[in-house]
Amino acid sequence: MVEEFKSSFYVSSVLAEDTRGKSVALCGSFGEGDKKAVIVTEKQPIDQKELTSFLSSSSHPELKLNFKNDIYSQYEVQAPGGLGSLKMMVVYPATEKHVMKYTDQEVFVIKETPEDYARKVKPYIESQALSLQWVDNILKGISEADRLIYNDEDHVSGFVILPDLKWNSSDLNSLYLIAIVRQAGLYSVRDLRKEHVPLLRDIQQKGKAAAEAHYGVSGNQLRFYIHYHPSYYHFHVHITHVKYDAPGCQVGRSILLDDVIENLEIFDDEYYCRKTLTLTLRKHDPLFKILSSN
Amino acid sequence: MVEEFKSSFYVSSVLAEDTRGKSVALCGSFGEGDKKAVIVTEKQPIDQKELTSFLSSSSHPELKLNFKNDIYSQYEVQAPGGLGSLKMMVVYPATEKHVMKYTDQEVFVIKETPEDYARKVKPYIESQALSLQWVDNILKGISEADRLIYNDEDHVSGFVILPDLKWNSSDLNSLYLIAIVRQAGLYSVRDLRKEHVPLLRDIQQKGKAAAEAHYGVSGNQLRFYIHYHPSYYHFHVHITHVKYDAPGCQVGRSILLDDVIENLEIFDDEYYCRKTLTLTLRKHDPLFKILSSN
Repeated sequence: MVEEFKSSFYVSSVLAEDTRGKSVALCGSFGEGDKKAVIVTEKQPIDQKELTSFLSSSSHPELKLNFKNDIYSQYEVQAPGGLGSLKMMVVYPATEKHVMKYTDQEVFVIKETPEDYARKVKPYIESQALSLQWVDNILKGISEADRLIYNDEDHVSGFVILPDLKWNSSDLNSLYLIAIVRQAGLYSVRDLRKEHVPLLRDIQQKGKAAAEAHYGVSGNQLRFYIHYHPSYYHFHVHITHVKYDAPGCQVGRSILLDDVIENLEIFDDEYYCRKTLTLTLRKHDPLFKILSSN
Repeated sequence: MVEEFKSSFYVSSVLAEDTRGKSVALCGSFGEGDKKAVIVTEKQPIDQKELTSFLSSSSHPELKLNFKNDIYSQYEVQAPGGLGSLKMMVVYPATEKHVMKYTDQEVFVIKETPEDYARKVKPYIESQALSLQWVDNILKGISEADRLIYNDEDHVSGFVILPDLKWNSSDLNSLYLIAIVRQAGLYSVRDLRKEHVPLLRDIQQKGKAAAEAHYGVSGNQLRFYIHYHPSYYHFHVHITHVKYDAPGCQVGRSILLDDVIENLEIFDDEYYCRKTLTLTLRKHDPLFKILSSN
């Protein structure tokens, strides 16, 4: 033990907080001293032995059930020792598909040439493109109509903007919106041509205005980008707070909307038909097998 | 409490672990049952009230000092209640600069046109470019010579590759290497022309071979990218494991090396002199002021 902690520490301000990483940075002083100290406190990673032993100990009356829906439930518990307070999501009974979904998979970097796209990927996408009922429901106003923060009904130049389901709709530092176009037949960035630049610019302008109006977040704190490959093949743009490291916003997973606009406008009308795209894919993604084969 | 947790839970396998996010996904079964369950356990974010009250409670004999170096020290402690086991980094006494460093700053998205670069940014970089003694030391073999995993001494086409200081050199899933070129006068991606494509390809090839030879990590699990703006203006390439969300690998902070190569080779010999680059900058970064002014 070192000198300083022989006194109590008095917090004068919270400098930073990382809820994902479970850390907090504090400024304050020891005892009556007038010198400042900065303390960065971070929870330790979960000790697997400790967790395994906690879960295997007979029954758990201390678990608090937050909700249960079908096979999914969520609990909170104050666990002993180093574990501290925990959140637990339980899938029971779980199928092999669930086990696979939560299993850490190898990830690979792979290149998709324009020829790969035309010959192997596009046919695959077209064979999949049926099951987007939920997108149709949003565009037709059947579902989530009260969640739209922007809606232009033109069937070519129109689009909707709404909060992404992953966002809790309250923490502005992790703001996450989605813009979904109305134009049919745009699967992904591969289908964009120079003629789509006005639509893309409009998404950017209206997205900034809507985020400012609804949440008071200004346009220069927003990141606009596209996933390639996207998780569904109906063209959409991700809009997140620049402070939020959203899943999949890394290079090799995402492309900045500003870059898309400028590449089409200045460098090549058909830039994204001519470009080899470097992607990251999980080992069990069907596209990984498709792109690795001849 | 719900039925399943009336029995003990037996872990059959660990599906995934996130040491940054402090979560673990387990597969197992309840009691003697043969149905599988998936449990995803995550530590809760630090409760600030709980932490403040813990720190302000008289003295702390339970703190274990890991190390102390000048004003920096690191402790571990088993804290009560929901906090669990904690790691604490203390700076004492702390100056205003320290307080600023650990204070959460606003981050802004900003565009840098080619004109901005020529008129405002390049002069700023040239005024700063003196203090790279540590890079010189590496290139001349004065420092870290035993850490190089690749070294080509040609003063134009040569470069070195070594582990980044942020990497603990053991956890392969967070592998982090840096390639630093020997050619003088290349500050950043802005200075690259088509003539540099062979150098960039060589970094990629030699980087893959060195990662395979030294760490057994194959080339298709590596992400090669460049920061813009970089933290120092001597051209270098980041090489990280694709599973590792390295700080700053988001779009708007980084550019894929594959994209740099193809943009110069196929789309425009001087792509990065002609491109407007969209960046994210912290409020107190001098470049933010420079780019926001006229």
